[in-house]
Amino acid sequence: MLNTDINCDMGESYGNYTIGNDLEIMPHISSCNVACGFHGGDPLHIERTLKNAKLHNLRVGAHPGYPDLNGFGRRNLQMSEDELRACIKYQVSAIWGMAKSMGLTLAYVKPHGALYNKMADNKQESKIVIQAVLDVDSSLAVMGLAGSKTELTARSLGVPFIAEAFADRKYTAQGRLASRKNPDSVIVDPKIAAEQALNIIQNNPIQTLEGDFIHIRADSICVHGDNKNAVLILQEIKTRLQKINN
Amino acid sequence: MLNTDINCDMGESYGNYTIGNDLEIMPHISSCNVACGFHGGDPLHIERTLKNAKLHNLRVGAHPGYPDLNGFGRRNLQMSEDELRACIKYQVSAIWGMAKSMGLTLAYVKPHGALYNKMADNKQESKIVIQAVLDVDSSLAVMGLAGSKTELTARSLGVPFIAEAFADRKYTAQGRLASRKNPDSVIVDPKIAAEQALNIIQNNPIQTLEGDFIHIRADSICVHGDNKNAVLILQEIKTRLQKINN
Amino acid sequence: MLNTDINCDMGESYGNYTIGNDLEIMPHISSCNVACGFHGGDPLHIERTLKNAKLHNLRVGAHPGYPDLNGFGRRNLQMSEDELRACIKYQVSAIWGMAKSMGLTLAYVKPHGALYNKMADNKQESKIVIQAVLDVDSSLAVMGLAGSKTELTARSLGVPFIAEAFADRKYTAQGRLASRKNPDSVIVDPKIAAEQALNIIQNNPIQTLEGDFIHIRADSICVHGDNKNAVLILQEIKTRLQKINN
Amino acid sequence: MLNTDINCDMGESYGNYTIGNDLEIMPHISSCNVACGFHGGDPLHIERTLKNAKLHNLRVGAHPGYPDLNGFGRRNLQMSEDELRACIKYQVSAIWGMAKSMGLTLAYVKPHGALYNKMADNKQESKIVIQAVLDVDSSLAVMGLAGSKTELTARSLGVPFIAEAFADRKYTAQGRLASRKNPDSVIVDPKIAAEQALNIIQNNPIQTLEGDFIHIRADSICVHGDNKNAVLILQEIKTRLQKINN
Repeated sequence: MLNTDINCDMGESYGNYTIGNDLEIMPHISSCNVACGFHGGDPLHIERTLKNAKLHNLRVGAHPGYPDLNGFGRRNLQMSEDELRACIKYQVSAIWGMAKSMGLTLAYVKPHGALYNKMADNKQESKIVIQAVLDVDSSLAVMGLAGSKTELTARSLGVPFIAEAFADRKYTAQGRLASRKNPDSVIVDPKIAAEQALNIIQNNPIQTLEGDFIHIRADSICVHGDNKNAVLILQEIKTRLQKINN
Repeated sequence: MLNTDINCDMGESYGNYTIGNDLEIMPHISSCNVACGFHGGDPLHIERTLKNAKLHNLRVGAHPGYPDLNGFGRRNLQMSEDELRACIKYQVSAIWGMAKSMGLTLAYVKPHGALYNKMADNKQESKIVIQAVLDVDSSLAVMGLAGSKTELTARSLGVPFIAEAFADRKYTAQGRLASRKNPDSVIVDPKIAAEQALNIIQNNPIQTLEGDFIHIRADSICVHGDNKNAVLILQEIKTRLQKINN
Repeated sequence: MLNTDINCDMGESYGNYTIGNDLEIMPHISSCNVACGFHGGDPLHIERTLKNAKLHNLRVGAHPGYPDLNGFGRRNLQMSEDELRACIKYQVSAIWGMAKSMGLTLAYVKPHGALYNKMADNKQESKIVIQAVLDVDSSLAVMGLAGSKTELTARSLGVPFIAEAFADRKYTAQGRLASRKNPDSVIVDPKIAAEQALNIIQNNPIQTLEGDFIHIRADSICVHGDNKNAVLILQEIKTRLQKINN
Repeated sequence: MLNTDINCDMGESYGNYTIGNDLEIMPHISSCNVACGFHGGDPLHIERTLKNAKLHNLRVGAHPGYPDLNGFGRRNLQMSEDELRACIKYQVSAIWGMAKSMGLTLAYVKPHGALYNKMADNKQESKIVIQAVLDVDSSLAVMGLAGSKTELTARSLGVPFIAEAFADRKYTAQGRLASRKNPDSVIVDPKIAAEQALNIIQNNPIQTLEGDFIHIRADSICVHGDNKNAVLILQEIKTRLQKINN
């Protein structure tokens, strides 16, 4: 039977500001990456997100980012190694403890945005972040871009790694996420996004932004919570998975 | 032998901004209340403070406050019960996990500033905060103003309570801290501050701002890290304790 | 001919977070209160809002609030008089200068949220804020709650005052806005909101949350930009005004 | 007679956090760069700084930086052109209006920290910032690194430029400021700093970190307010200027 983990970034709302339809998305996913309050999220939204994740029996991960609410963690920020290490430990600890307070066990950490992309091409950045995660809890897994420096670094450190691929983002020929500055980088058509997801799940090649075909080996498929068609994409993936499995 | 726990708020520096001579103070105290990044402190300063607390064999507490860096947590902020609960759980979890990552065990939680004072006179605020602390780790103690609603509430909930008194702050006749708006509320003279500390330790009465005498029963004496004479006050207390004990 | 100024809070989006459908609302209003970056808004959204206000020939006001993004300026914050004065001068100056840079002239200042409500019942708070506005530009008008201490204070200082009433908020018997904690305080039904607006414009009584009837004399009607039916309410008001005028 | 403008960054304190001895420094300088609240400073400290600048008859400039209080504006932050433009306009406007409210006229804008250094080597970044300054007030001058892209860009745009050199920072062979990561980059010895200042004022060569000698043509000499010896350096410069002039 064809199956896959599907993850989504959650809890990124802030105060009076809402991002994502978390409650509509949760029934369709199996893993939930909880924002930690630095690029998005705040204690109240984190608390609610964890509660809802528990109700939906989701695997829970922490989703730390650069301390840049105005840029939603999507702008590069030049942090020292010590700053970055402490910043990751703080965010992961916050979610770890809040999850524990509800009887949940934090399972993994998935870095966010600009930090995620920087790690994908940078062993040193990956090493600092992964080591910081282990410092908090050595049983945590790391989720990151399939085929990236993040994966290489995690595996070389002997850390359980969840290789992630994206349903709703175009890839470059190098297997990296195309920049959000490129208007074609975000896939909003549910059929096209589901097609890309299914190709990845079935180990078929997918077409990059440049037109080449690449293979991606992934353990989990991500759909972005702030994609306006997130729920439709998730439903389409489920429908197509069921068709294949029947 | 006369003895007492002495605690100090630490790790309240932020980025390029320094408050308190933490490294000079640590040799003179036994308990260290670590700022959690909301009223002061940031991940890097928290990390360093915990490291130094370990080097000095200090008992470690979390020191959460209102989310108000510009007001240093000393301004009242009208939070909903849900906001306050989540805000405490987040901050305590962050310090709990970072302490654990260094092999330290978080021992207690001492609320900060305006929150500390609000709890002293408000059972409901105390209950929310104390319950939030227990949610994170039911073995944590709570440190708060001796003789306050915080103490009453903690004891009625069966939570270990560390009754705190202040060497360097004047009290009102009601046993509350005199407002910082009153220029006489902060004691900077090392001899006067040490005198007040010794009186509290020896169960002697102390004189309030209004001139009355009150008794305070305390388990721990606080000296403020941002008191310009903090080190001198701590040295004077130690000297006087040694004299009495010899 | 029956006519009125209609104002709306705009530019309250922040980074990746969107609040209000500013572009859909602008064609239906005559005055635009621009968030200043403290309770909501950021430089980029302020810039865009001013540009769009110019395109729609709107009268432009500054909309300063407490420095509390997470609470959207809707939580009371205990600021000193000096802090409050400087905080208003800073926000008004920022919008004043950015408006000028586009050839716009800032016409008025309307305080936001908890500050707005505090001023409505507090002469001293009103005086500090209004004086701070005049310090920046003595030709500015102040917009505030009709029949409030804000109005009294502005008139006693000889400051042009724009008395404001709300289409989409229930009033208390005292002519104050019912608290947002009361689920009935926000009116989302376009017909009911338009009915209240028309009654105010025609000097008819409106019914309070308690059931009493009060009169409100207003120069401008506000519809909230984050009301989910803001555009429908504005259209309904326009339709009813046109009917009466024909 | 040998003379020069001496400028210093001021008003960078934040809430309860103090940086720099502004009041001790002001008697020794002629120009005052006022932090705008993004990398440092807050409305209350800005207000006080402007008041004190007026008392000391100082020329007043705005000192905008990246929106990064935790990094004190000294970390690179990847902003879009639109974000950067709006961010500069907002900060300059805030200081412009607050200065005006006290009868002061803002004279110039000096970018801060990482933004300052990025502009020094980047025409496009310089152009965006300088154009944003002109948008707010076309009579403003720009202060920046002598001999940099900032100077080139300002002059090509016909904007009055104040070429700045540093008494207390070592230069690279390229005439750029040596990175603060290099422990030798900040000069704290008053005699050495004053020697460098006097050499620049007298058009003598100065020695770079690498040992080469370079010439810097400057209109204003900067001493950093957060240099622990700022006052001593300023006094030494004054003493040596007086000796030469007698």
